[in-house]
Amino acid sequence: MLLLYHTMMSVPSRFTRLILAECKANAELTEVLPWERTEEFLLVNPAGTVPVLRENDGPPVCGAMTIAEYLDETRGYALGSRRLLPDHPNHRAEVRRLVHWFLNKAVDESARFFVDEKIYKRMRRPSEGGGSPDSTLLRAARGNLKIHLNYIAYLAERRKWLAGENFSYADLAAGAMLSTIDYLGEVPWEKEPIVKDWYQRIKSRPAFRPILADSLKGIPPSSQYMDLDF
Amino acid sequence: MLLLYHTMMSVPSRFTRLILAECKANAELTEVLPWERTEEFLLVNPAGTVPVLRENDGPPVCGAMTIAEYLDETRGYALGSRRLLPDHPNHRAEVRRLVHWFLNKAVDESARFFVDEKIYKRMRRPSEGGGSPDSTLLRAARGNLKIHLNYIAYLAERRKWLAGENFSYADLAAGAMLSTIDYLGEVPWEKEPIVKDWYQRIKSRPAFRPILADSLKGIPPSSQYMDLDF
Repeated sequence: MLLLYHTMMSVPSRFTRLILAECKANAELTEVLPWERTEEFLLVNPAGTVPVLRENDGPPVCGAMTIAEYLDETRGYALGSRRLLPDHPNHRAEVRRLVHWFLNKAVDESARFFVDEKIYKRMRRPSEGGGSPDSTLLRAARGNLKIHLNYIAYLAERRKWLAGENFSYADLAAGAMLSTIDYLGEVPWEKEPIVKDWYQRIKSRPAFRPILADSLKGIPPSSQYMDLDF
Repeated sequence: MLLLYHTMMSVPSRFTRLILAECKANAELTEVLPWERTEEFLLVNPAGTVPVLRENDGPPVCGAMTIAEYLDETRGYALGSRRLLPDHPNHRAEVRRLVHWFLNKAVDESARFFVDEKIYKRMRRPSEGGGSPDSTLLRAARGNLKIHLNYIAYLAERRKWLAGENFSYADLAAGAMLSTIDYLGEVPWEKEPIVKDWYQRIKSRPAFRPILADSLKGIPPSSQYMDLDF
């Protein structure tokens, strides 16, 4: 049995949920609010971060890329030609570079500001850092998003999928990142036909369905979020 | 032929140099100053970060853990019982969790403040962000270092090496992290006998020698930095 500790709007958590779905591995989900840092969760992961995966009585597998490696090691072979990490070390390195890019660089520079300012600040009490969104941070996030959209377009124009010939963890990482921003209606799709075409291809995969069904209490998704013909 | 782009006082770069030395893989070193962001280096790694490894005409392998995975995939088997990633997926996950902890969490919370405030601010012109060290940041870095030293002691008391029975990437990550702080004389060794005992064991490995020979112009290492009987 698999148990995933996640946060609905956390990009690394979404990346993990997408991988589990691509592996057709059902996991029971437990939601963690990142600012709560409960003792119970700190015993699972002393870093206090999501995602964390547990399999049966095994030790906690902490962190998105560590989980991705674990799932490749335990399920990759069974996926055959749909395996999400390629065979050649050079190609694996390229997938890992891009996963890091989208889960860390793009999140730090853009996605997290949208989520913090437009969602978490509304969910938290003022004593926990709640309040109204900071428009300066949102402007910076939009500017940086443009750079990351350009980079996805650059890759998608030159390659069949973002890391090369095959669909991989790199596509799931970029998809997880964009999906959180799209939830908030902040992706300027009309200006990004190449990115839109790539995103349409991954959005229509069955593994994306649970992500598209996500809905936060009081903060519903944007109109095109669930729409496969956005 | 291997070529490594690195920064002498970058923890992820030191981690990579230690792995290369453990693998007895000679790499030509090219130093990159993180704030320079030259066009030449951005063509190698568009993220502009070190370390980056190139092997012959292969593509750049970017990022410390991506390089560690690459070296395990291409050299791990030849290391036999000295392999730095264990065989079992659960144990591999534990090594990866700890590498992430020491290269990211411990660096973000502690090591980078020492390096930024005591080294980089002295190396940069005022227009590049140079100046005198911020004592508030250094105090925070010292407080956080205490927590990370406690965590290393907690692990070292319960396990032969930090991730379990075998010497692994986890020890090299923690060692790389502490070595930068020790260069600046900021590790309170006298208060940390358990950490000191563990560090003495890895410091005396031949792979550590090149790191211990590091010296920055105008900022020499602390007196115990090179001393194996510190």
